[in-house]
Amino acid sequence: MIKTGIIEGAGFTGGELIRLLLNHPDVHLIFITGRGNSGQYIHEVHRGLYGETELRFSDEPQLDKIDLLFLCTDIEESRQFMQRTDIPENLKIIDFSREYRLKSDEKFIYGLPELNRRAICKSQYVAVPGNFATCITLGLLPLAKNLMLNDDIYVHAIIGSTGTVGLKPSSMTHFSWRDNNVCIYKPFVHQHLPEIHESLSQLQTSFHSDIHFIPYRGNFTRGIFSTIMIKNKVSLDELTQLYIDYYAEDSFTHITPDNIDLKQVVNTNKCLIHLEKHGDMLLITSCIDNLLKGSSGQAVHNMNLLFNLEETTGLNLKATAY
Amino acid sequence: MIKTGIIEGAGFTGGELIRLLLNHPDVHLIFITGRGNSGQYIHEVHRGLYGETELRFSDEPQLDKIDLLFLCTDIEESRQFMQRTDIPENLKIIDFSREYRLKSDEKFIYGLPELNRRAICKSQYVAVPGNFATCITLGLLPLAKNLMLNDDIYVHAIIGSTGTVGLKPSSMTHFSWRDNNVCIYKPFVHQHLPEIHESLSQLQTSFHSDIHFIPYRGNFTRGIFSTIMIKNKVSLDELTQLYIDYYAEDSFTHITPDNIDLKQVVNTNKCLIHLEKHGDMLLITSCIDNLLKGSSGQAVHNMNLLFNLEETTGLNLKATAY
Amino acid sequence: MIKTGIIEGAGFTGGELIRLLLNHPDVHLIFITGRGNSGQYIHEVHRGLYGETELRFSDEPQLDKIDLLFLCTDIEESRQFMQRTDIPENLKIIDFSREYRLKSDEKFIYGLPELNRRAICKSQYVAVPGNFATCITLGLLPLAKNLMLNDDIYVHAIIGSTGTVGLKPSSMTHFSWRDNNVCIYKPFVHQHLPEIHESLSQLQTSFHSDIHFIPYRGNFTRGIFSTIMIKNKVSLDELTQLYIDYYAEDSFTHITPDNIDLKQVVNTNKCLIHLEKHGDMLLITSCIDNLLKGSSGQAVHNMNLLFNLEETTGLNLKATAY
Amino acid sequence: MIKTGIIEGAGFTGGELIRLLLNHPDVHLIFITGRGNSGQYIHEVHRGLYGETELRFSDEPQLDKIDLLFLCTDIEESRQFMQRTDIPENLKIIDFSREYRLKSDEKFIYGLPELNRRAICKSQYVAVPGNFATCITLGLLPLAKNLMLNDDIYVHAIIGSTGTVGLKPSSMTHFSWRDNNVCIYKPFVHQHLPEIHESLSQLQTSFHSDIHFIPYRGNFTRGIFSTIMIKNKVSLDELTQLYIDYYAEDSFTHITPDNIDLKQVVNTNKCLIHLEKHGDMLLITSCIDNLLKGSSGQAVHNMNLLFNLEETTGLNLKATAY
Repeated sequence: MIKTGIIEGAGFTGGELIRLLLNHPDVHLIFITGRGNSGQYIHEVHRGLYGETELRFSDEPQLDKIDLLFLCTDIEESRQFMQRTDIPENLKIIDFSREYRLKSDEKFIYGLPELNRRAICKSQYVAVPGNFATCITLGLLPLAKNLMLNDDIYVHAIIGSTGTVGLKPSSMTHFSWRDNNVCIYKPFVHQHLPEIHESLSQLQTSFHSDIHFIPYRGNFTRGIFSTIMIKNKVSLDELTQLYIDYYAEDSFTHITPDNIDLKQVVNTNKCLIHLEKHGDMLLITSCIDNLLKGSSGQAVHNMNLLFNLEETTGLNLKATAY
Repeated sequence: MIKTGIIEGAGFTGGELIRLLLNHPDVHLIFITGRGNSGQYIHEVHRGLYGETELRFSDEPQLDKIDLLFLCTDIEESRQFMQRTDIPENLKIIDFSREYRLKSDEKFIYGLPELNRRAICKSQYVAVPGNFATCITLGLLPLAKNLMLNDDIYVHAIIGSTGTVGLKPSSMTHFSWRDNNVCIYKPFVHQHLPEIHESLSQLQTSFHSDIHFIPYRGNFTRGIFSTIMIKNKVSLDELTQLYIDYYAEDSFTHITPDNIDLKQVVNTNKCLIHLEKHGDMLLITSCIDNLLKGSSGQAVHNMNLLFNLEETTGLNLKATAY
Repeated sequence: MIKTGIIEGAGFTGGELIRLLLNHPDVHLIFITGRGNSGQYIHEVHRGLYGETELRFSDEPQLDKIDLLFLCTDIEESRQFMQRTDIPENLKIIDFSREYRLKSDEKFIYGLPELNRRAICKSQYVAVPGNFATCITLGLLPLAKNLMLNDDIYVHAIIGSTGTVGLKPSSMTHFSWRDNNVCIYKPFVHQHLPEIHESLSQLQTSFHSDIHFIPYRGNFTRGIFSTIMIKNKVSLDELTQLYIDYYAEDSFTHITPDNIDLKQVVNTNKCLIHLEKHGDMLLITSCIDNLLKGSSGQAVHNMNLLFNLEETTGLNLKATAY
Repeated sequence: MIKTGIIEGAGFTGGELIRLLLNHPDVHLIFITGRGNSGQYIHEVHRGLYGETELRFSDEPQLDKIDLLFLCTDIEESRQFMQRTDIPENLKIIDFSREYRLKSDEKFIYGLPELNRRAICKSQYVAVPGNFATCITLGLLPLAKNLMLNDDIYVHAIIGSTGTVGLKPSSMTHFSWRDNNVCIYKPFVHQHLPEIHESLSQLQTSFHSDIHFIPYRGNFTRGIFSTIMIKNKVSLDELTQLYIDYYAEDSFTHITPDNIDLKQVVNTNKCLIHLEKHGDMLLITSCIDNLLKGSSGQAVHNMNLLFNLEETTGLNLKATAY
């Protein structure tokens, strides 16, 4: 059994991680901290867990008692934790924040298994990719691998309410406002663009094109659905084959010949990708569940790799479907 | 033109009132105060009004320049306003809070036109009924009028997110929580029960039955849909006729022979009522839009009565329907 | 491995059953029939299964190759199947329809484990309880057990769109109509009332009270949330203890001291129950996922009992939570 | 009073048109036909109209009794009606279908007031623009006017369930499928592209750029929200001024300095447009209510122009806002 602890498990990603780990056959949850929730039962905060655990939020991480630590912290908190904490030599760490995703952070590996599986298996520290970054990068990796990213890329992606912001209520998360509403935010400057660029450059060093990215806020709770356009003269059949080849070894990313819709992946760790061409324009549709493949599911996937488990362990989740 | 002012127009009911008054043919909006929004354009807070008004939130009510004041304040604020303010002698006031709804407040009339139309026409101060109270009382008034409230009453009613709480975000209003969710709150002890009892007792002084009221929170934004059960031995046809007779003079409350659904009344000032019997059990279904018939629309209705206008003026609203 | 087949697996309950069985460690799915879908991949109809199975809908059930058959058929189809089919002697059958739920059908046991666990373990044929019946009966069984059902019972319950009707589109299932809408249907005469009465009478033979049941259609996809009122003079603490005692051995039904909301159980096989009292009035709140505890999850629970597996096998499902 | 008739008033656009015309001060509704609904009350089909009209669907259009006919018919039905009907000489016609939108149909004017107001005022037959076409064309007209459409245009637009399909139920409109779901359809080949091209070419004859248009289906009922990208070297201030100048005379189309969201326009006849630049990339956000500005509201706008009324008559609608 892998003994694990969680720092700041009271938020969206922390809750999803706990829900996964409680049902994971090889994991023992030792402690979960939650600022401001110390002493409360986990199921008082994550109410769907009633009847599944009697664990409580604790004050103090007991790093010497665990094999693996999940940091469900934001960028500032993760940096401070890594700097100020006396970290046991063999402790493995999986960090959810943006702090260690870029290459300059040599101790951390970027935890996108479809890009870095072998390196992850041998590493100690993993940075979990961003949710938008996961969905969009997976839609483009096979093109990068084949050096086909040589023109402007246009990306639109719509995300649910659990992806853009925390549990902390705000006017943007108010049901009365968001129900039946749509808007965009941070056009062209979303914070995940640097990691997308870096992942693509890892496979195609010549990649310097612009990514024109417009994120939409949708009136649903879970999921990211993205459409990506780039000019490409290769035939659809050949391109589809490149994608199938690229993801041949991957358990969660599938190329489908049919149109896709968001609910096919909600509550699963899958990424579905569909390709179409219209003249020279290639359209890539890609979708994931932001809390699973885009966050906590990918974290568990990385854990499985770090500890040499079958990579799908604990991640064969029943889709909600409706 | 009726010159009007609004105290605290930045909330849900204030916004709806402004949207109504801007299109009302006989109203001139002189000022709107909004604590913390002073100086902002109205359309910066109520964003759907972009292009309809250049009015700004003001600091100070100018009571000497208006004929009618709307208090979109809570119970504490209304009381303090009435106690501390030097109110011009002829100023009419319509208060949205719960403070002056009960009879002991002799200066105010309870503004349910289907119960008190004549008295409202002659009054100066009006207390706007609560949203649940409006929906449920309208479902029971004809029975009270005919002295038929002699047994326990069981009421379930489900309300949208604009009805239970203010614009202030909270965990209960978070889209991620409320989307596709349902729960109840304040069973048996909802704060509107006293005014319902008082309205019914006004027509049937012998009324002392219990009202067992379970309020549900629904995952929609606007509307109240209620089901009311009480034992009654009279035939459905006779009961239906009593209801039709009672509301014969009313413009907004209709008895329908068909099942009703919430969207029939959303964005209108209507109340729809449907009756069914099963043996001796009478089932009354009643629905309204909580922001209109349940609040700001009813306030405008009262204004029309106070100023001897045709009662439907400014209230023939196009339903959204979908 | 239990070899299983499914008759009519193309609907809501069939899809959910397939999603469960594909991840069940002790089950091998041999065939699935689907009228009009013969030859299609399962994932073409249940699109969330893309990447999980290459099984296709078949024309012909191969009853001699399986240990257990699920009938995801309606009342007519189940009857015809049982009458016209040459059923192998040892084949176990779990039927989803209403046809065999009442006692007069001696060959079938009513598959509510909280009521009939021992009998189910020894039986060959099981009738899966109705979704509303499951939610409401579980809310009342401890009272029946203690002979406390001696007064009228008032039940309101709201159900999602996967519960009331099939996948076949109708005006009542049109998104444009149902989004943000609420209505009721079949008040007092819902088809699940006879089985509720029978289950309660099994524990309290003197039970003859009326159940006044108003079903609501909610604008969500999954789940049933019910509130049940009955007069009772026993203290809340004592009643709560009776409930805890009654369900002490059950894996999925929990009594909670806190208010409950629907999403706590969505995508799980749990039933959560909460009790409150106001004077002599007892309020029982009970909620389930209609496709799981209210249908396919309960069917798998019954399968586990029929084959002497740990009853939670394959049913520790990660909640969606949001 | 303008005497009007409606052919096929039982659908989404017909219902919205009826709701508008019943409250229009200068209109008298003479007849409404509805295939398959003949004899039914209007409010039996458009249930939100209960209490507002006692009109019934009729069998036969009485063209000699009206001044204006609305054709709420599809492309085939409109063509057949125009070909087979003996149309009175002075009868004005407003057609909702796609049949007569392109210039080759010389008798019809394309009813986009922001492009053709003067021509509409003098015409007899009007073709109502498509909903997507309205939203996207309004976002681009000022650029066409200033000859700035010289590069590829990338358009994403998301539409509600009342816009893509009729009231006829289908798997794509099933609540269980569409709630909390997103998908795309007809990428690059949507049927509104020809009319968008033609409108832009009317102002910039040199316009031959590609429009790469990806339509999304959203899980809401009303509205279109679109984002449009095109490279442009002019400053944001200058571009904004061009837009303000272009729409200076228009009552319903507004340029706003703030981000926009869909609900600002839902249930109104407005179009809101917002501009941003990032380097040389111009981003235009544009939104409308598909049933109003995108269909029935625009039809009434055209009627007002045809009959020399103030163009906003009957179209100052209270937004739902929530």
